[in-house]
Amino acid sequence: MGQVRDRLKQQVVEMTEKFPGFRPGLAILQVGNRDDSNLYINMKLKAAAEIGISANHIKLPNTATEADVLKCIASLNADPAVHGFIVQLPLDSNKPINTEKITNAVSPEKDVDGLSSINAGKLSRGDLGDCFIPCTPKGCMELIRQTGVQVAGKRAVVIGRSKIVGAPMHDLLLWNNATVTTCHSKTSTLAEEVGKADILVVAAGRAEMVKGEWIKPGAIVIDCGINHVPDTLLVQNTQKNPAQRKFDREIDMSTVESAQRFLEKFQPGKWTIQ
Amino acid sequence: MGQVRDRLKQQVVEMTEKFPGFRPGLAILQVGNRDDSNLYINMKLKAAAEIGISANHIKLPNTATEADVLKCIASLNADPAVHGFIVQLPLDSNKPINTEKITNAVSPEKDVDGLSSINAGKLSRGDLGDCFIPCTPKGCMELIRQTGVQVAGKRAVVIGRSKIVGAPMHDLLLWNNATVTTCHSKTSTLAEEVGKADILVVAAGRAEMVKGEWIKPGAIVIDCGINHVPDTLLVQNTQKNPAQRKFDREIDMSTVESAQRFLEKFQPGKWTIQ
Ligand SMILES: NC(=O)C1=CN([C@@H]2O[C@H](COP(=O)(O)OP(=O)(O)OC[C@H]3O[C@@H](n4cnc5c(N)ncnc54)[C@H](OP(=O)(O)O)[C@@H]3O)[C@@H](O)[C@H]2O)C=CC1
Ligand SMILES: NC(=O)C1=CN([C@@H]2O[C@H](COP(=O)(O)OP(=O)(O)OC[C@H]3O[C@@H](n4cnc5c(N)ncnc54)[C@H](OP(=O)(O)O)[C@@H]3O)[C@@H](O)[C@H]2O)C=CC1
Repeated sequence: MGQVRDRLKQQVVEMTEKFPGFRPGLAILQVGNRDDSNLYINMKLKAAAEIGISANHIKLPNTATEADVLKCIASLNADPAVHGFIVQLPLDSNKPINTEKITNAVSPEKDVDGLSSINAGKLSRGDLGDCFIPCTPKGCMELIRQTGVQVAGKRAVVIGRSKIVGAPMHDLLLWNNATVTTCHSKTSTLAEEVGKADILVVAAGRAEMVKGEWIKPGAIVIDCGINHVPDTLLVQNTQKNPAQRKFDREIDMSTVESAQRFLEKFQPGKWTIQ
Repeated sequence: MGQVRDRLKQQVVEMTEKFPGFRPGLAILQVGNRDDSNLYINMKLKAAAEIGISANHIKLPNTATEADVLKCIASLNADPAVHGFIVQLPLDSNKPINTEKITNAVSPEKDVDGLSSINAGKLSRGDLGDCFIPCTPKGCMELIRQTGVQVAGKRAVVIGRSKIVGAPMHDLLLWNNATVTTCHSKTSTLAEEVGKADILVVAAGRAEMVKGEWIKPGAIVIDCGINHVPDTLLVQNTQKNPAQRKFDREIDMSTVESAQRFLEKFQPGKWTIQ
């Protein structure tokens, strides 16, 4: 992703040369204090600083109500120094908050996470030039592009259909002209679908669900999964593979890795695991 | 579709009993004078009258500008007697009009054709209870339901990804829990994809594209196509099948019909051609 960061840094420099005094402004609105959200937000703030974007972290307490959050969004929508903002999900409040209502309150021009219905509508109908693309699928698409493999005409399989990962990933692959199949918890033929994929993106929220032997030789495989693996399983895995981290992947990596070694030996060519 | 009409008629009766003096109001806005649009609009006006909906046809000349159409939409958005309205597509004007801008000007609460980005976003992300569903895919889904075949867990293939038919059809099948594949003009494995489908919906705008022998025995097949077949081909077809109409289907029906006869004889069970 270093290339992407360099490109953006350059764009900010060009922008400020053209419009002296101008500084692109990002805000990140957090409700509550989840550990994973704190981690992600810090990464985003760090990246923004590196690129030359002025980023502002707004933290509401976990007692914030829906009305409090909506009020804060309205002021960000109106603030001319904020060019885009992110509402960090999930919202961590002890009051009932309708997440849908929150994401749709973000003004479409500032909805850099692309989670409002208007953005989703444009993305799903192929108006890619006129919308913001959710970051995880956008990153996956960038990784796929970096393999140099042409997406058009390929068979792509996405496991998962969430608003944040699976569904927009489907849209991006479809409008880059892949023939796309979406799998989910009601899919009865998962191994078979996976076996057909030239490009496979897994975003199912369950560890070690896809078996390495299902995957077609030469396929591009992207695993979005960040799953907490119970300690007992972790001990078993660590015995198998000492480098295993606590956050495990959704693809059974020991199987994929052995498949990869096999392929590298017997079938040279593109075989990418990100 | 008679059942649907009876159900809606009954609902209108109940509504007017509950709120005397109330009459549901539909408007249809047409620009220009296309033959096919005139035909479709007449069918809609007739259906509305049968159901007890007051329907109003507004016809702008083919000299109408984008601003004229937007002005008319704004007044329909504001009119309390109009509960929903349709902008008949394609727009037939000799002035340049951005169709996207027009469909997105319709207020989401009145967008009964479901073509605005907000509606598409909700449908594509699975908020089916909170959006309007475009009529052709909605009708297809109704036909599929009437077969009694359970959609969840089945493999569905949609050929086409237009805003009006293909893309919303994908969404409806996906959120009814089928495993859905979308095919389009860049799909390199069409016959193979068709061959896997338990449910196949064809909306590709090309006559006789899908061969009967590709189709899996027992599949539910829906052909949305309305295609004008050149007279020369028509003559050939009419010789094969005297009932062939001028508007031809996208599935090669003679092949499908012979497959159907074969199946009915040798493999009893569900085999539906709508
Ligand atoms: N790398 C990154 O930047 C990010 C990673 N993630 C990770 O990606 C993963 C997915 O996240 P998210 O989309 O938010 O998760 P969700 O829980 O919202 O969605 C999970 C999806 O997987 C499907 N699924 C569940 N079980 C199965 C199964 N047995 N077979 C096939 N499909 C199944 C679900 O189907 P159904 O719809 O039927 O329930 C659902 O569509 C998680 O591990 C998450 O931590 C998420 C965001 C960012
Ligand atoms: N029965 C009804 O009520 C209605 C019927 N229709 C009919 O449905 C059909 C589709 O309409 P509509 O969606 O508006 O048409 P569009 O022309 O907007 O879309 C056609 C779709 O088919 C795809 N396609 C074209 N050629 C091929 C091919 N060789 N293989 C696979 N896919 C292909 C196109 O792919 P790509 O995206 O790559 O270009 C596109 O997605 C038409 O026949 C139309 O008359 C339409 C509306 C209502």
